[in-house]
Amino acid sequence: MTTREECVELDAKDPLASLRSEFSLGDGELYLDGNSLGPISKSARAAVDRVMGEWQSELIRSWNLFGWMDTPLKLGDRIAPFIGANPGEIVVADTLTFAIAKLTLAALEQRPDRHVILTDVMNFHTDIYILEAVAQYAGRPVTVKTIDRNELAQHLNNDVALVELTHVDFRTGEALDVAEITQQVHEAGALVLWDFAHTTGALPVDVTSAKVDFAAGCGYKYLNAGPGSPAYMYVRKEWQDKVNNPLPGWLGHARPFDFEITYEATQGIRKFVTSSPSILALAALDGALEVFEKTDMTAIRKKSLALTDLFIKLVEERLPGEFTVVTPRDHAKRGSQVALAHSEAYGVVQALIRRGVTGDFRAPDIARFGFTPLYLRYVDVYDSVEQLVQVLNNGEHQADEFKVRNAVT
Amino acid sequence: MTTREECVELDAKDPLASLRSEFSLGDGELYLDGNSLGPISKSARAAVDRVMGEWQSELIRSWNLFGWMDTPLKLGDRIAPFIGANPGEIVVADTLTFAIAKLTLAALEQRPDRHVILTDVMNFHTDIYILEAVAQYAGRPVTVKTIDRNELAQHLNNDVALVELTHVDFRTGEALDVAEITQQVHEAGALVLWDFAHTTGALPVDVTSAKVDFAAGCGYKYLNAGPGSPAYMYVRKEWQDKVNNPLPGWLGHARPFDFEITYEATQGIRKFVTSSPSILALAALDGALEVFEKTDMTAIRKKSLALTDLFIKLVEERLPGEFTVVTPRDHAKRGSQVALAHSEAYGVVQALIRRGVTGDFRAPDIARFGFTPLYLRYVDVYDSVEQLVQVLNNGEHQADEFKVRNAVT
Repeated sequence: MTTREECVELDAKDPLASLRSEFSLGDGELYLDGNSLGPISKSARAAVDRVMGEWQSELIRSWNLFGWMDTPLKLGDRIAPFIGANPGEIVVADTLTFAIAKLTLAALEQRPDRHVILTDVMNFHTDIYILEAVAQYAGRPVTVKTIDRNELAQHLNNDVALVELTHVDFRTGEALDVAEITQQVHEAGALVLWDFAHTTGALPVDVTSAKVDFAAGCGYKYLNAGPGSPAYMYVRKEWQDKVNNPLPGWLGHARPFDFEITYEATQGIRKFVTSSPSILALAALDGALEVFEKTDMTAIRKKSLALTDLFIKLVEERLPGEFTVVTPRDHAKRGSQVALAHSEAYGVVQALIRRGVTGDFRAPDIARFGFTPLYLRYVDVYDSVEQLVQVLNNGEHQADEFKVRNAVT
Repeated sequence: MTTREECVELDAKDPLASLRSEFSLGDGELYLDGNSLGPISKSARAAVDRVMGEWQSELIRSWNLFGWMDTPLKLGDRIAPFIGANPGEIVVADTLTFAIAKLTLAALEQRPDRHVILTDVMNFHTDIYILEAVAQYAGRPVTVKTIDRNELAQHLNNDVALVELTHVDFRTGEALDVAEITQQVHEAGALVLWDFAHTTGALPVDVTSAKVDFAAGCGYKYLNAGPGSPAYMYVRKEWQDKVNNPLPGWLGHARPFDFEITYEATQGIRKFVTSSPSILALAALDGALEVFEKTDMTAIRKKSLALTDLFIKLVEERLPGEFTVVTPRDHAKRGSQVALAHSEAYGVVQALIRRGVTGDFRAPDIARFGFTPLYLRYVDVYDSVEQLVQVLNNGEHQADEFKVRNAVT
């Protein structure tokens, strides 16, 4: 049996241990939900304070004095290494849903003779909603087919324009093979758009070597940039001269301050900016990224796998047979979360929250726990499982007030 | 001749004078650019601090504990009185350009047999860009006609689906007659979408009595909610059951946490929420609105007109014949800014900025000055004109470094 002392020792040897002090997590906070909303870092808070001071003292002049106009590009370049992108391939703007809308329409225009978008029936639902919405705007009949992602090969043919997939499944934590799938899609002559919502800042991918066409990701999960933080769009350099921003705005114009009534896109990734995202929101991202710059994705990934391995091991040692571990054991197929299936998962998650362990319930039967190496300790994993053991031993998950939702499963 | 002493007296009698202390404007700051970016208020700063604290201490739990999910609607209800809207008719989300995109597509769907959008050739250019972009997504041929707004009657016919106009011209400061134009548009069987970017928080309109269909406005100008602050959408109650959000997302779903793969819109204005805007950005708006709640739009409008009247009077008294006052003298046709045409307007604005008076140059020949009653004093108007007199008397606007752009006019 793994002991708490062993976990304390792992923390003592952890090269990322010092980064926890960059955050201000409360005592006793066992936060396994950084895959939903990351915590505020001291540097994020300081950056928002700094930008409020800029706004206060320099008002409109700040746009030039502090380079606010270029912030979406500068932040994009700092996110680039997390996904193996190059400078000038990422811009931060809008929300993830709008990012997917824009990139989908841009991609459809590049495959004018094709009529199908393939996506995963288990995809995050808002991806499916927006794909179905913008499919109507392609100027030709385009159908969104929601398929079993394991049967992608059967559905790929010369009528498929675009494949949109989320790299890490938000329920199960399964990570798909970006390089293999991208190649498969390209062999069918289609383009690929990856949703990296549960990837960015959690596990490395290499969009350059995988020849990914388009990608998008959010700031509020593993990047810790705050609630409703703007999203990012990745457009591979080779595409940038060819594609259009389907929802253009003046900040993507070649000469924004000439106030021309005809839209003419600027060069490069900047054309995908429509209007300015909140500069305060971008400041939070700016500060949040400082923490990542004290380490790298290789170290983060290594600890992430160690944390999820430890959690799975502890759950199986201490609660044998109680849960089905839905998340793949194969490291290559694992994101940075562990999903445990249980017929009373709703009650399990609620009872844990009362004990200070924050995870998520995902219908119908999944208790989902995110593991974030920048601020989680090995001992936090141990203590969380200890609370889980208490919940199950005391039957707290079967409390009357959880019965209705437990029964739905 | 109007004296500085008279202006000091006007300030002494100004019922809004105390509101200046809600802001933290620097000594000697003569800020006539609140129509571009409003200043930060102490309450906006405090609200952002408060929300950062919520995020820090309660993490994901904040969404429920502090009602973050409802913030877009609660803020909408607080903006409603500024434009004569009712509770439940406004939601804050996205940027102004996306708001116009969504409302335009929603409107086009309600007039399926019509093929024309009319807009003002002098409209803010990004309105025109996005109208032209989304016109392609209507599922039928739709043309955007950019017309002289004074010739609207000639262009209205039974093929016009939508008229999109900005209430206050960003260059000239001319305010259109919302009620009259809306009625004219409705008589032709078309719908109207008003852009209230230069209206909201500056001058009252009454969308209810005018029977306005749709409107949108921004937070970063007169509302003082910060750079890139989210926009708002107004959808008249009668339309809310009929229209669809053309760019739907999970936060507008009837059951967002059921993760259904089929989109089903919720009731009311909330359906126009796609994904969450930045909660930090919304906090700034929350705090910014507190200042407005210490007064009302009638008092704000009264002082706004007094300030613009005073500015025009001082310019004409002290610099007779130097500028053409482009902004209408008729109060009913005036926004909250004054545009002065001058062949060397670029140099005039730049030289004024060096002297601490911030206005905007708008090509080809306009020096634009915004007047914001919450924090501007009558004596600020006097002192700004004094600096303008100095600039002209010294020929500072004709300095070598301004020659190229002065010559463009």
